[in-house]
Amino acid sequence: MEWPFMTAASGPVEVTDEVLRAQSRPVLYHYDPAFVDFFDHTSSLLKQVYRTQYDVVILQGEAVLGLEAAAASLLDPGDKVLNLVSGVFGKWFELYVERHGGQVIELAVPYNEAIDPADVERTLDRHPDVKVLSVVHSETPSGTINPVAEIGRIARERGVLTVVDTVSGLGGEVLSPEEWNIDVAVAGPQKCLGGPPGLSLMAVSPAAWEAMQRRKPPLRSSFLSLLDWKDTWLEQRRFPYTPSVSLIYALESALRHVLEVGVEPYAARHAAIARACREGVKALGLRLWPARESIAGNAVTAVHVPDGITDEQLRGHMRSRYGVMISGGYGELAGKLFRLGHMGKAAHPAYLAAQLAVLERSLADLGFPVKLGAGVGAALEALGDWPPGGCSEGRSRRP
Amino acid sequence: MEWPFMTAASGPVEVTDEVLRAQSRPVLYHYDPAFVDFFDHTSSLLKQVYRTQYDVVILQGEAVLGLEAAAASLLDPGDKVLNLVSGVFGKWFELYVERHGGQVIELAVPYNEAIDPADVERTLDRHPDVKVLSVVHSETPSGTINPVAEIGRIARERGVLTVVDTVSGLGGEVLSPEEWNIDVAVAGPQKCLGGPPGLSLMAVSPAAWEAMQRRKPPLRSSFLSLLDWKDTWLEQRRFPYTPSVSLIYALESALRHVLEVGVEPYAARHAAIARACREGVKALGLRLWPARESIAGNAVTAVHVPDGITDEQLRGHMRSRYGVMISGGYGELAGKLFRLGHMGKAAHPAYLAAQLAVLERSLADLGFPVKLGAGVGAALEALGDWPPGGCSEGRSRRP
Amino acid sequence: MEWPFMTAASGPVEVTDEVLRAQSRPVLYHYDPAFVDFFDHTSSLLKQVYRTQYDVVILQGEAVLGLEAAAASLLDPGDKVLNLVSGVFGKWFELYVERHGGQVIELAVPYNEAIDPADVERTLDRHPDVKVLSVVHSETPSGTINPVAEIGRIARERGVLTVVDTVSGLGGEVLSPEEWNIDVAVAGPQKCLGGPPGLSLMAVSPAAWEAMQRRKPPLRSSFLSLLDWKDTWLEQRRFPYTPSVSLIYALESALRHVLEVGVEPYAARHAAIARACREGVKALGLRLWPARESIAGNAVTAVHVPDGITDEQLRGHMRSRYGVMISGGYGELAGKLFRLGHMGKAAHPAYLAAQLAVLERSLADLGFPVKLGAGVGAALEALGDWPPGGCSEGRSRRP
Amino acid sequence: MEWPFMTAASGPVEVTDEVLRAQSRPVLYHYDPAFVDFFDHTSSLLKQVYRTQYDVVILQGEAVLGLEAAAASLLDPGDKVLNLVSGVFGKWFELYVERHGGQVIELAVPYNEAIDPADVERTLDRHPDVKVLSVVHSETPSGTINPVAEIGRIARERGVLTVVDTVSGLGGEVLSPEEWNIDVAVAGPQKCLGGPPGLSLMAVSPAAWEAMQRRKPPLRSSFLSLLDWKDTWLEQRRFPYTPSVSLIYALESALRHVLEVGVEPYAARHAAIARACREGVKALGLRLWPARESIAGNAVTAVHVPDGITDEQLRGHMRSRYGVMISGGYGELAGKLFRLGHMGKAAHPAYLAAQLAVLERSLADLGFPVKLGAGVGAALEALGDWPPGGCSEGRSRRP
Repeated sequence: MEWPFMTAASGPVEVTDEVLRAQSRPVLYHYDPAFVDFFDHTSSLLKQVYRTQYDVVILQGEAVLGLEAAAASLLDPGDKVLNLVSGVFGKWFELYVERHGGQVIELAVPYNEAIDPADVERTLDRHPDVKVLSVVHSETPSGTINPVAEIGRIARERGVLTVVDTVSGLGGEVLSPEEWNIDVAVAGPQKCLGGPPGLSLMAVSPAAWEAMQRRKPPLRSSFLSLLDWKDTWLEQRRFPYTPSVSLIYALESALRHVLEVGVEPYAARHAAIARACREGVKALGLRLWPARESIAGNAVTAVHVPDGITDEQLRGHMRSRYGVMISGGYGELAGKLFRLGHMGKAAHPAYLAAQLAVLERSLADLGFPVKLGAGVGAALEALGDWPPGGCSEGRSRRP
Repeated sequence: MEWPFMTAASGPVEVTDEVLRAQSRPVLYHYDPAFVDFFDHTSSLLKQVYRTQYDVVILQGEAVLGLEAAAASLLDPGDKVLNLVSGVFGKWFELYVERHGGQVIELAVPYNEAIDPADVERTLDRHPDVKVLSVVHSETPSGTINPVAEIGRIARERGVLTVVDTVSGLGGEVLSPEEWNIDVAVAGPQKCLGGPPGLSLMAVSPAAWEAMQRRKPPLRSSFLSLLDWKDTWLEQRRFPYTPSVSLIYALESALRHVLEVGVEPYAARHAAIARACREGVKALGLRLWPARESIAGNAVTAVHVPDGITDEQLRGHMRSRYGVMISGGYGELAGKLFRLGHMGKAAHPAYLAAQLAVLERSLADLGFPVKLGAGVGAALEALGDWPPGGCSEGRSRRP
Repeated sequence: MEWPFMTAASGPVEVTDEVLRAQSRPVLYHYDPAFVDFFDHTSSLLKQVYRTQYDVVILQGEAVLGLEAAAASLLDPGDKVLNLVSGVFGKWFELYVERHGGQVIELAVPYNEAIDPADVERTLDRHPDVKVLSVVHSETPSGTINPVAEIGRIARERGVLTVVDTVSGLGGEVLSPEEWNIDVAVAGPQKCLGGPPGLSLMAVSPAAWEAMQRRKPPLRSSFLSLLDWKDTWLEQRRFPYTPSVSLIYALESALRHVLEVGVEPYAARHAAIARACREGVKALGLRLWPARESIAGNAVTAVHVPDGITDEQLRGHMRSRYGVMISGGYGELAGKLFRLGHMGKAAHPAYLAAQLAVLERSLADLGFPVKLGAGVGAALEALGDWPPGGCSEGRSRRP
Repeated sequence: MEWPFMTAASGPVEVTDEVLRAQSRPVLYHYDPAFVDFFDHTSSLLKQVYRTQYDVVILQGEAVLGLEAAAASLLDPGDKVLNLVSGVFGKWFELYVERHGGQVIELAVPYNEAIDPADVERTLDRHPDVKVLSVVHSETPSGTINPVAEIGRIARERGVLTVVDTVSGLGGEVLSPEEWNIDVAVAGPQKCLGGPPGLSLMAVSPAAWEAMQRRKPPLRSSFLSLLDWKDTWLEQRRFPYTPSVSLIYALESALRHVLEVGVEPYAARHAAIARACREGVKALGLRLWPARESIAGNAVTAVHVPDGITDEQLRGHMRSRYGVMISGGYGELAGKLFRLGHMGKAAHPAYLAAQLAVLERSLADLGFPVKLGAGVGAALEALGDWPPGGCSEGRSRRP
């Protein structure tokens, strides 16, 4: 089957050619001293991107591994977890809590809304025995963002550990576990960071390590164990098992690119493109999925499927006629919305114009009344100050 | 220095990732039987793309090598060449004719015009001793096209050999040396074919071979010799010197892609995008460089630099602010026009929208009054029947 | 730090350039129809390499994930597992059993020995309530092989489910879950198959699926769950979470290569090189680690560290002086042995000669008395019938 | 057709993976400022490898282009050239001289011999009107070396310009146009430098430029013109025509590697491997082609085809049975000798051992009596001081 011309989906994202070249380096034996050095160096880049002094752990599996590992490593049977749910991925975390013996208290909002910190405050005050709070920073299925910094502060004041799913947040927003009071953060390379999928990028606070060590018994000798990485990699520069060598090459390249641009300009770039994308979508007469623009995230723009067309028709047409792959709704949201991705390499005016143009043309082909050019025009209008301040230039880096 | 995000220039063009992967295969010894086979196979693909039964020769140097080789191999001192000049590249051929002892008769038109076959007829009738006629099919510096089929017929009727520079023509238009009465055709991989620069792709008619053999003495043992390739490669499957192994890998990949799409749909795709590009440019209030749209070519769209902006300002702004590299005017045309390239991978709606959007935004940034979105909108309007008939789908191929 | 010139270690192995090129294809969105097709196609290649009609599952984490997932998915609290231990990796499985509530009965032999099927028979007869038997096919740390086919038959006769770690076995030996009565097999791409690390390649028998479904409750919604893959991928062509797209590209290339050579010739090639390696090692006056050659495996050749030299000296010297990376002893075997790897691309006379030559030269440099050339000579002597029957030629494949 | 496992031929050589990755970077438009910078930077690396202050020119065609360009650019009709001939390539230069109107005086020796500087002195004294002396530094077809430094001095003393074919010399020996009194040097990337074929790497002395400018008329507007590069690139940072973008990427990577190792250690490495190769060959009872070892070069080792076997049998067997490609005799030397290449990446003990081992095994297979291991053993014996002094380590570099 033919491959698409361009991917502008919700992740895994299209990565740059330099990431692909990095990934095609010869596979080293994991105990080759050059690889041990390389892994160490990559970890230190990750610390810089996370703007943290906490330990970072690179788990060798896609981000759901990191999320489950957090639950499995932190929870004793019966431990209470306040799970904040504003979308499909937030709801998923409940499964990990229950699988690993925890008890869920849920604070939920509709899937086009964001969590209100005041509600968190009230709920925690009602449940003083909550041990862990879990929240999704960037709800990719909904294209929304939660106020994690405020939530983290509230939790910290009450001695509650905070686990944050920032899988599609890191890179697209400026954050720091210390500033935001996050105890366990889980990011993915395959979203805003512009790398390939297959790793969980974690930051772990001292308090979280202590909690893991207090668990009875501490979770060790498991693919789900974070302590295994502490005992081997962090303390002895050994691996608990064979890491995914090629993916580490790719990750290093992606992280290095973020740092070369600068963490703040890199995020500003995502914010600017996301804002322009929303302007483009609205100018086409489409309706954004998030209840308010102030809670729309920088990773993807979620849009109501317009009347008279199905999600599958639109996405199928865009791909088969114009070779552009976007995403539909996920889980409960299937059929209700479609999503334009603008992460990593795609966080660029050229990419945005291309995908909006193909969207416009496709809507017109399918009989939805659009003024061709209106979406791209509105997006360009919003990009008057590109590249965003601090971001030296609008170009990509290549060796 | 940072590299551009996207290249939409007059060639070398940005190539597909599969061409790059092909090019990164291990370098074989040129007499490895696998390479000899591979070169043979690549030559046979070239024959199919040229739609010819004539011999094809892949000279191991950029297209100007092929052009000079044609002059050097065909001409005896004093031979008369009717050189048709409708642009910078047409004028260049005079240098090769003179260098190799020929005598030039020039038929020239302004550089935004095309050659009129009736003028060719008249000129040849006035100069019955002309041996060779030379003409540029696609004048990349001007974005224009010459009526080579008609000119070829006129020359053939008079026993004149025709040398055609179709460097940026092959792939973008459907042609055949036999149908168009071309004796020596020279194409480049780095234009519509979507490959890298460094080779001359030639088709040679039996009459041209005879003329080369009648030359006194025949040109042999030279980098400029076509007969060397006939004597060695065509007749003995040996090489006159070491070929550029990696470039042959890339060429094979590019040619295979053209044939998978189909020579006719592949050209139709270029025509459709070129037409849409012109609509986009006009909708922005810009003026096309070619005197009439009927002579605009499919490779690049040449546009008058608008008043109040310089060519360098515009191109510099597009690259430094938005990472998009386009071309300026070349030679005598420097400063007068700029050129949007839409060859190979760039002959796609997504690429066209991206470059027009960046053009619009840049014009606005520089104070030229544009209605943002107007150019992309007009282009999309013109692409209502994408992909053009016969072309199965609008996607790119990747293994 | 400089990278080695050549890797001949115990895995991850050096992969071919075509695997690297495959891995450097653009990252697709996992729900792009082209990727769904590609994953399906890769799974079908894996079935052919496993010579099985059972379901295959490609877990998205290194082989220890597959092993833990087998334990986690099959075992209810208190279930008895007969764990056969002939090396470091065999012993490891005990940890997974205990972590997931099982009870271990151990049958162990020294780490240079293989399990005797008669002992297995006796032990199972003594423990009629054993639910699962676990065994390592190829004990990479010891360079030994266990008689899995016989053990599988014994277990099947007693209604015991068999879990086999064939991480470094598949590809290096011809096996089939059906013929060998294996219920859950776990292989790794990064060993004899010549791919990169990061995946668990599993075959699951109907009986194993039933046992997983009978578990109370069935393990679902976990990175350790095999049923998640049955429910989503096998039944609905959906993914339980994002797969490691790039690694699937690489795996497909590696599997395709095995099938192009042929599963049997591919394994025969490994056997021939392993035999030649042992001859080479013995001719240098070194002592093989396995108690008898009949239990030496095809993946690596384990060798006693000779007196007067340390393992680290030897390996360090080979790498720093000659750029060749080999492996030392692992876990309890550290310092006692070193290992020459000859898997995948390295299962070739040229690679074997190179690593033996560097070994010889290094031993001499370190004062160990060797007749230079003796090891390579003996290895070459043993390769008189290369390539092994059925294997068309001794070359590598490249596009 | 299957590709070989390993190439150890006379060039193009197998290049490193980093060169291949460099070559697979996106193709830039040649007037993209990043490419202009890159070309400039690459030229400056070439100057360092040539250890020269002279201008360097990178002609965009394989080394025969550079050789012909030297003749074409320097010679007026009737100019006398003393052509030193010690092999097939030396003889070839006569063709270029004659094609471009020069008159050849030949000083020849048998093709297993080297030029004696005393003979050069005598001949030049007999022909005081010689304008240009031409000599091949490393005669790849013969595996021999000429004493260019002494010859250059002799020519300079007599005001004769010296053109040196160091296509397979640069990198394998330490040279400098200034120190050796070379006026025009021509090297190739595809030999000791470890790059791909397709470029001529030239150094041009001020005296040579002057001679070219005095030619009547100076050669301009031709693919054979060196002055075109002076007028455009050297003076205006413009290109006379489109350069082979991808090959420049590869060249830069190869040159950078040489400089990272150090020009002297890099050459010492070639010398050490060549010496070891000769020891290996002799230990197998084979006879070296060069009349004396003192004139054997560092690029390839030429060996008499032993009685009872043909060149084609041996080479065919090595490739079809063991996947190793070596070279035969070229031109007049066809059938008389075979050649083991040890340039670039292949100038390494592991590569040498691999090719000698396959040679040994193949000779034995074909009935030639060899003691298996004797060749590799003798080579290893000769490598007791690897890596040669000044060369930090025996490893390859990779990012």
